[in-house]
Amino acid sequence: MMITEALRLQSQGSKHLHFLIDVNDEQIIYSNQSFINQFSDIKNPAALLPYIENEDLKYVMEKYLACKSGEKVEDFESRVYIDGKRHVYKIAAALLIISTGQHIVGCDAEDITDLKDYINVLNEHNKKKNSILNIVSHDLMGPIGIIQSLSGLLNDPEKKTDEQRLYQYIDLINRTSKKCIALIRNFINQEFLESSGVSVVKKKSN
Amino acid sequence: MMITEALRLQSQGSKHLHFLIDVNDEQIIYSNQSFINQFSDIKNPAALLPYIENEDLKYVMEKYLACKSGEKVEDFESRVYIDGKRHVYKIAAALLIISTGQHIVGCDAEDITDLKDYINVLNEHNKKKNSILNIVSHDLMGPIGIIQSLSGLLNDPEKKTDEQRLYQYIDLINRTSKKCIALIRNFINQEFLESSGVSVVKKKSN
Repeated sequence: MMITEALRLQSQGSKHLHFLIDVNDEQIIYSNQSFINQFSDIKNPAALLPYIENEDLKYVMEKYLACKSGEKVEDFESRVYIDGKRHVYKIAAALLIISTGQHIVGCDAEDITDLKDYINVLNEHNKKKNSILNIVSHDLMGPIGIIQSLSGLLNDPEKKTDEQRLYQYIDLINRTSKKCIALIRNFINQEFLESSGVSVVKKKSN
Repeated sequence: MMITEALRLQSQGSKHLHFLIDVNDEQIIYSNQSFINQFSDIKNPAALLPYIENEDLKYVMEKYLACKSGEKVEDFESRVYIDGKRHVYKIAAALLIISTGQHIVGCDAEDITDLKDYINVLNEHNKKKNSILNIVSHDLMGPIGIIQSLSGLLNDPEKKTDEQRLYQYIDLINRTSKKCIALIRNFINQEFLESSGVSVVKKKSN
């Protein structure tokens, strides 16, 4: 008695959304304070559907049906829109068969929006960095290849280059090397800006 | 009655570790299956302390005392060692005062080891990439700077370079440009290896 009362108090005060669906009546027979704060006192589980991101609806329905038929459902994610704001919930649900024989689906939904956003920033940052790396390495490869070819040509003892062309080539090598240096400088600055961007997000999330 | 029974069944089956501590007796009066799987049927909460990472002990004790005096504790993390394996738990705890006046601390601990590892890999990957970027950009900056200086020198109409020195410089420019190209190639290969490393981890964690 003491334990069940404590568990109910714990559920009531949890930051996670807790709710119980009576499977026969398709009625929400219990919801905790966090649930009520988000969805008010909804009794019909179907009234939750309009909040769910369209793309996730089919998946959520499948999970609910699986759960009703006894499958334990853990850590599935769904995007939900409340007052125009996007949330991501991580949901665990299980079929509970109580002593009266009643079938109840118990759900625990945790708002993991901030965590998802943080991981997305890290991933985006990695992706963006990869693309910068590709651009820079290829953008440098070209000009340095030109320098290599020209200097190789000038260096070839078999092919004597006339003086006018020699200085044309040297001038081209000089201008190309300047371009490379400007490119690297730009790139270092951009990198620096982006890295500081990530550390700000990290602090917010810790 | 039906609801409290369902909530208890839900707690029993949860993947999270649930346990209730009677504050007066300092006794664990309830623990769910996931808790028992990790710590067997421990009744004395002090018996949990040896599992906790030394560095986290003081922090965990502070949180427990805060919780006992009525503060709601959410999402604090502690490292725990079970059978030599490191786990990270995210813990929520609250003081529950039941109708008999008894004070109970209710705890919910979620094993977030995989998630933490995943975020660590992403962060490490970002850090490593930053250091590669620094090395590469500085390692390229030097040789390209040499090319620029040498070609600038040769290009200067005021300073006529004698033929022997001219071809020495051109040879040096050629060898330096080859070094740069080798450096970029190496770097692209290394990048490629590391990026594929991260996508493997990502799949495992999804």
